[in-house]
Amino acid sequence: MKLASLKDGSRDGGLVVVSRDLTLFTDASFLVPTLQSALDNWQRVAPHLQAMAESLEAGAVPAERFHEHHAHSPLPRAYQWADCSAYVNHVELVRRARGAEMPESFWTDPLIYQGGSDSFLAPRDPIIMADEDWGIDFEAEVAVVVDDVPIGASEEEAEAAIRLIMLVNDVSLRGLAPAELAKGFGFFQSKPSSAFSPVAVTPDELGEAWDGEYLHLPVNVDLNGKPFGRANAGVDMVFNFPRLIAHAAKTRRLAAGTIIGSGTVSNKLDGGPGKPIARGGVGYSCIAEQRVVETLETGSPETPFLRFGDTVRIEMKDLAGHSIFGAIEQTVQAAAN
Amino acid sequence: MKLASLKDGSRDGGLVVVSRDLTLFTDASFLVPTLQSALDNWQRVAPHLQAMAESLEAGAVPAERFHEHHAHSPLPRAYQWADCSAYVNHVELVRRARGAEMPESFWTDPLIYQGGSDSFLAPRDPIIMADEDWGIDFEAEVAVVVDDVPIGASEEEAEAAIRLIMLVNDVSLRGLAPAELAKGFGFFQSKPSSAFSPVAVTPDELGEAWDGEYLHLPVNVDLNGKPFGRANAGVDMVFNFPRLIAHAAKTRRLAAGTIIGSGTVSNKLDGGPGKPIARGGVGYSCIAEQRVVETLETGSPETPFLRFGDTVRIEMKDLAGHSIFGAIEQTVQAAAN
Repeated sequence: MKLASLKDGSRDGGLVVVSRDLTLFTDASFLVPTLQSALDNWQRVAPHLQAMAESLEAGAVPAERFHEHHAHSPLPRAYQWADCSAYVNHVELVRRARGAEMPESFWTDPLIYQGGSDSFLAPRDPIIMADEDWGIDFEAEVAVVVDDVPIGASEEEAEAAIRLIMLVNDVSLRGLAPAELAKGFGFFQSKPSSAFSPVAVTPDELGEAWDGEYLHLPVNVDLNGKPFGRANAGVDMVFNFPRLIAHAAKTRRLAAGTIIGSGTVSNKLDGGPGKPIARGGVGYSCIAEQRVVETLETGSPETPFLRFGDTVRIEMKDLAGHSIFGAIEQTVQAAAN
Repeated sequence: MKLASLKDGSRDGGLVVVSRDLTLFTDASFLVPTLQSALDNWQRVAPHLQAMAESLEAGAVPAERFHEHHAHSPLPRAYQWADCSAYVNHVELVRRARGAEMPESFWTDPLIYQGGSDSFLAPRDPIIMADEDWGIDFEAEVAVVVDDVPIGASEEEAEAAIRLIMLVNDVSLRGLAPAELAKGFGFFQSKPSSAFSPVAVTPDELGEAWDGEYLHLPVNVDLNGKPFGRANAGVDMVFNFPRLIAHAAKTRRLAAGTIIGSGTVSNKLDGGPGKPIARGGVGYSCIAEQRVVETLETGSPETPFLRFGDTVRIEMKDLAGHSIFGAIEQTVQAAAN
């Protein structure tokens, strides 16, 4: 099934079940008010939501037109957003550009950071920033939402706890990151609010594209209407989702509704750093990576980070070309003074 | 007023108002079910809770005996736990012990990390760990809970948003931290679940000890029943709470219920690193700091980190000697295999 949280003036939005083709929804909030409360009681609630989804497909329940721009992120706020960097290629490239060697352990020990989860952006919300020179970038990723995961969970337990899958735009401020990371405590100001796809889907909605560990489809990233990235989320992901979840749960349990991100999707090309789409490659899922490749090739970056007015669109289509999660589409705006 | 969340089998506990002397409570959950929901609607809800608190003191509402060990952390799960390191003395000491210089900017630019907030421990819950050799440590801190804070908030706006104050035990795994920090993305596995004091209080409960920026009282830390730390939270805090909140809100808004921590309370002595209580000092609010001082003095640490069976107690008393927040008291236990 496909679930969304519609903007209704509340902090968490109202839970709705969305049709497979994303054209219709039926209200589910009379059954369970929010997606978080559904996740809090998933075993009990999910069968009812599933039945509603089937009725919606059959035209057997009241339905209204679904508009993606009415949707919050599926969890407008969450108790945990733990983002990984499982496409190690991305990490290696970014480090190489600044002349920093990547430790060999990065290929065997997952990289993860604790993200802010109290105030996500809606998928069509603007990215409002005070300063255009903070190096505003997008990062297109896949994320899963898990049920309760016990401390010290095995990868099998982790896999069994995956309830929902969605896309993310992990907005990043490249200009603020180096000084912040140099302090040694990770990102904070350099990771402003993320936005998630309008719809979160259960694994069964993905058919063979989801194997319990990886999502084998390209993430379509467009910048100002032009193709920017088509990297396949199932390729070059060094740590699969169960591994990432188990890593996160090593020393503490994860509560239901925890979101685990893949990190920026990034594909190598012939073992190398990949090419822009315009030159026959699959492109990139963030601007930083394209700038790194430019720097490696010509000595300096060419593509600017996002400026006020720029729009990024992130979407994933199934093999028949239908949007699975709806699109994240965000325009950068200047904060009002 | 003083608020607590009693264990009732639910994820968030049931909201109660606690008497000033911590002996009685009256149920508030019929008015607003959880502390988070009270924070979500603070302007509307707080006056009613305040009236209940006054009625409780006057014996005008049904009251039951308050037991601290029945309490969850006031927010058993939160949307954000952002912990700072405002007692820069602590940072300098820890760094000095490992031979790392501290950048001068640490005195002017607050250090903050995003903590996991999905699954806090209750104040009397055991600290259950799989491995005694992970370097299990406590960190006694003060934390504030804020209302909604707009992006780019001023320090004045930040100060006005402080709703509640509590104590924290920011459990830390010193053995896992160095390798994790070396990866550059901050803490994750090395910061397992924190625990908060049984009771959160509004600023007015603190009288002159709270000036809107600092909490001017000692944090009492006992290890296995012996005094370990009596550092004053109002001394040597380089960045006050409004400054920390404004720092956190620079690039994204903070949602109501966000918890901001002070970092380990740490006092200098005559400009130096302080002394154990047994030697006439105010001691330390974490074991790591005592070990650092031992290392500086004798070349190697003497005090071991927590072992299974060790108990830490964290409490703050008013000038009359009455516990303000109740006590965090946690024993380290081995995880069942």
